[in-house]
Amino acid sequence: MEFSSKLLENAVNQVSQLPGIGKRTALRLVLHLLRQPAEQTNQLVQSLGKMRNELKFCKSCHNISDVDLCEICSSHKRDKDIICVVEDVRDVMAIENTSSFKGLYHVLGGKISPMDGIGPHDLNINSLIEKVKTNQVKELIFALSPTIEGDTTNFYIFKQIKEYNVETSTIARGISVGDELEYADEITLGRSILNRIPFENSLKA
Amino acid sequence: MEFSSKLLENAVNQVSQLPGIGKRTALRLVLHLLRQPAEQTNQLVQSLGKMRNELKFCKSCHNISDVDLCEICSSHKRDKDIICVVEDVRDVMAIENTSSFKGLYHVLGGKISPMDGIGPHDLNINSLIEKVKTNQVKELIFALSPTIEGDTTNFYIFKQIKEYNVETSTIARGISVGDELEYADEITLGRSILNRIPFENSLKA
Repeated sequence: MEFSSKLLENAVNQVSQLPGIGKRTALRLVLHLLRQPAEQTNQLVQSLGKMRNELKFCKSCHNISDVDLCEICSSHKRDKDIICVVEDVRDVMAIENTSSFKGLYHVLGGKISPMDGIGPHDLNINSLIEKVKTNQVKELIFALSPTIEGDTTNFYIFKQIKEYNVETSTIARGISVGDELEYADEITLGRSILNRIPFENSLKA
Repeated sequence: MEFSSKLLENAVNQVSQLPGIGKRTALRLVLHLLRQPAEQTNQLVQSLGKMRNELKFCKSCHNISDVDLCEICSSHKRDKDIICVVEDVRDVMAIENTSSFKGLYHVLGGKISPMDGIGPHDLNINSLIEKVKTNQVKELIFALSPTIEGDTTNFYIFKQIKEYNVETSTIARGISVGDELEYADEITLGRSILNRIPFENSLKA
């Protein structure tokens, strides 16, 4: 791609470093900004810069927060002894959207993935184990994605805490509500039969 | 979408104003930036801001340029009396990539489109007509997209300049090289038969 301007080329190169955005898309986005009033670009630029440089992570659960202790951790309405372990901020948002959980979260910041060079020490695992050790936790709910990396991470944490007096659970895996059985993959269908629940329980939700 | 941070929410809202980027994609992009060193966000922000506020448009052809008169307009190797009329900067880049054109460009900045509220006076049409009036142009090549808006724009300009002594042409429309005939749309196929060219000419390119 030949650019008529270094300024344009730099902007396109920077934008195309974002995941899933190629050179052509980056050029389309940048030209869109050029057609809009400069005010829009300035606001975009300011909000990104401010976010990157001023955003904090909750000192307890590591969720993104504007204050030292996030709203959920500091709320009086939440069960402080049930902790839901999630991979990242989006999972907190997704679970909060369901209004089905009234405990606290613990954001690991990723999953153990040797392929990507992510080991236990790159994640917020030690602070979680510390919480369990100091008897602050009654139940730990593993809510990582059901992938090899998610299962590895669950198991790594489980090994470290099993000697302590804490219940552990994982979110139920099975057929999505509204899905056709015949299209479900074998592993999911198989597990959903093995982990069947009393029929009366299924009437509750 | 419920955010745990105003800073995060603002950034996501700003990014999701870009065309083709929804809230979820914006969140994914913003969280990506948070996982990278702050330096990457700062470079992105700086290059966008600098581009939006310092970028110039060539005073002759209106192409994006870092200087008053762009490289193409100021080059001694280009035919200054053949002007290719295009919609935007991407078209200049696409045609330059082919190395098939050695004249100058004129970037309209869009197409006439009453539906989108874009009239002739929102485009760089007057300066083009001025070039024709002052006898600087031997041939005008219309290279807009073959859409209703493109054809309207071509015709609008054509009406204004037909009294002057200038050749006009449009880029050839026909079956793309490598395409199967049976999959071509009827209008394109029909036109390509009406506008057939001597066989010897097709051997040149």
